[in-house]
Amino acid sequence: MAKITKEAALLYHSQGKPGKIEVIPTKPYSTQTDLSLAYSPGVAEPCLEIEKNPQDAYKYTAKGNLVAVVSNGTAVLGLGDIGALSGKPVMEGKGLLFKIYAGIDVFDIEVDEKDPGKFVEAVKAIAPTFGGINLEDIKAPECFEIEHRLKEELDIPVMHDDQHGTAIISSAGLLNALEVAGKKIEDVRIVVNGAGASAVSCTKLYISLGARLENIVMLDSKGVISKNRTDLNEQKRYFATDRTIRTLAEAMKGADVFLGLSKGNVVSQDMIRSMASSPIVFALANPTPEISYEDAMSSRPDVLMATGRSDY
Amino acid sequence: MAKITKEAALLYHSQGKPGKIEVIPTKPYSTQTDLSLAYSPGVAEPCLEIEKNPQDAYKYTAKGNLVAVVSNGTAVLGLGDIGALSGKPVMEGKGLLFKIYAGIDVFDIEVDEKDPGKFVEAVKAIAPTFGGINLEDIKAPECFEIEHRLKEELDIPVMHDDQHGTAIISSAGLLNALEVAGKKIEDVRIVVNGAGASAVSCTKLYISLGARLENIVMLDSKGVISKNRTDLNEQKRYFATDRTIRTLAEAMKGADVFLGLSKGNVVSQDMIRSMASSPIVFALANPTPEISYEDAMSSRPDVLMATGRSDY
Repeated sequence: MAKITKEAALLYHSQGKPGKIEVIPTKPYSTQTDLSLAYSPGVAEPCLEIEKNPQDAYKYTAKGNLVAVVSNGTAVLGLGDIGALSGKPVMEGKGLLFKIYAGIDVFDIEVDEKDPGKFVEAVKAIAPTFGGINLEDIKAPECFEIEHRLKEELDIPVMHDDQHGTAIISSAGLLNALEVAGKKIEDVRIVVNGAGASAVSCTKLYISLGARLENIVMLDSKGVISKNRTDLNEQKRYFATDRTIRTLAEAMKGADVFLGLSKGNVVSQDMIRSMASSPIVFALANPTPEISYEDAMSSRPDVLMATGRSDY
Repeated sequence: MAKITKEAALLYHSQGKPGKIEVIPTKPYSTQTDLSLAYSPGVAEPCLEIEKNPQDAYKYTAKGNLVAVVSNGTAVLGLGDIGALSGKPVMEGKGLLFKIYAGIDVFDIEVDEKDPGKFVEAVKAIAPTFGGINLEDIKAPECFEIEHRLKEELDIPVMHDDQHGTAIISSAGLLNALEVAGKKIEDVRIVVNGAGASAVSCTKLYISLGARLENIVMLDSKGVISKNRTDLNEQKRYFATDRTIRTLAEAMKGADVFLGLSKGNVVSQDMIRSMASSPIVFALANPTPEISYEDAMSSRPDVLMATGRSDY
C-alpha cells in the first residue's frame, strides 16, 4: 500500500504554485506581430467569422477541446456536502486527469448554488464557453433534474460523472470480474449499498447489460429498499424488493456481487465470508471504502476486490 | 506598419490546437502515488482544510492566481454587440495577455445573458472558483450596474477592464504626452468622442488627475453632450457642456487633447490641423481608429499620436 499521509497530501496541493492546474498560451506571443494577431487588430477576424457561423467557434477558439467540470460541492467524493469552494481541489484534480489521460482541457467551475433551477440557469449562462459539461459531485436527487434539464436545453454534450462515469467503469470492472469468477451476469445476485446518483446509475447499467432486477437488493442509509417502505423517491422505488431482507448482513448472504457507493467501514469480514463463491466486492466509497482492501482480501482466498482509490 | 491580414489572423487562431490557451497540470502525475495525492484518497485532505477555513482555498487550489475574464459580448472591441460566443477569441486573448505579462491564469467565461440582474446572478454563482473577476466588453449602461452589484456582493476583487484598464493606461499616456507637449493637465482643453463605459471612466480619471470639467467636451453618437439635450443618462449628464458647440469639428478647434473611444474614421486631417499646438491624439477605437496613424502623423509635424492597436 502506498502511504498517503495528510502531510504529503497537503504538501502536494500547496507546493510551488498552489493548486493543480494552470493556463498557458498555445500560440506565439513574443513579437509585436504575434500580439497584433492575438489581440487587436487581428482578433477581430475570428470574432466576425464566428458571428457569421457559430460553428467556427470550434475552429478559432478552445471551445471544442474545453470541458467545464461543474460542481456545487454537495456530494464530494465521500466527504458529502462540504460546499462549492471546498470541492475545488477535487474539480482541479478532474482537470489534471482529463488532460493526462485524454488531452482535454478543463475549466473547473465551482457553483455556489444548491437550488437545481438556479444551478441550471448559471450553467446555461456560461455554456457558450465550453464544448461539453461534466457535472460532478452533486447530490441526489437534485443531480437528476439538473442533468435532465441541461441535456434538454443545451446544444453541447452533458454528462454527470458520478452517474455515468462510475457506471461505465464499474460495469467494465464487473464484466471482467464475472469472467474471472466464471459467472453470468443474468445469474448473479447483487447487493448495492447506497442509493445515490452513482448507485442508481451503476445498477441501471448492470441491468441493461443483463443483470436481473429481481436478483438485486439495494440499501440506502435507512436500510433495505423494500416494497413496504413509504419513504422512497421515484429512483429508489424502481429497485424496491419484495424479499424479506432487513439488513445489509442478511442481504450479503449468498450474494455474488457487492457494489458499495455509500460510506466507509460498513462491511465486515464476516459479511464477505457469507457471500457466494468468488465474490466480487467493489467497495467504492472514497476516501474510505466500505471495507478496506486488506480486510476484504484477508477474509477469504477467492475474493475479487476493487476500491475507488488510486493507491491500490 | 505590420501587415495584419485577415488570412494571417484566421490562421493564427486556428493553427495547431484551435484557440489561444490550454490548461495543463502543475503537479507531478506520472506515478500511482502522484495520482493518489492528486485525487483519491489524498485530495480529501485539502478539501477538509478548506471546509474548516475557506481562506485555505488560496493555499491548496489555483483560486488565488485565477481570474475570470467575463463577457456577454455586447460591446466587443470595436465590433459592438456580436454576442457571447463570438467574443470568445478576444477573451482568450486576454488570457494570453494576463499570463505573458503578469503570470496570472485566466479562465475566459462567455456569458449568454444580457439582463444585468441575471448576468450578476450567473457570475455570483461561479465566483468561488476565482480570485478575481475582470469584466470585459459589456455595453454601457448595463456594465455600470453589473460592476457595482458584483463589487457590493462578492468577496473577491472585481474590475471592468474597458473602464478601469483603459482609464489607467490612457491616463498614463496622457501624463507622458503632456510632459512631451509641455502642457499642464489643468489647462488643456479635451475633446472626448464616445460616451460609453471606457470614455466615461477615462474622463473621470483625467478629472481626478487635474483636468477641469469645464475644459472638456464629450460627444456621443448623437453629437455634443450639451445641457440642452433631454436624452442623457446619469453618466452622460455629468459631462454636459453649456458651450454652444454642435459638431465634432467645432469641438476640435483649438483643443489640446482628443480622446477617441468611438468608431473608425470619424476624425479628419483638417480636424487635427485645427487643434492647438502639439496636439495629443488618442484614437483608441478598435480595430479601426478614429483617424489612422498615417493620416494623423502626416497632418502636421507636432502631433502626439496613439492608437489602441498592437501593430503601431
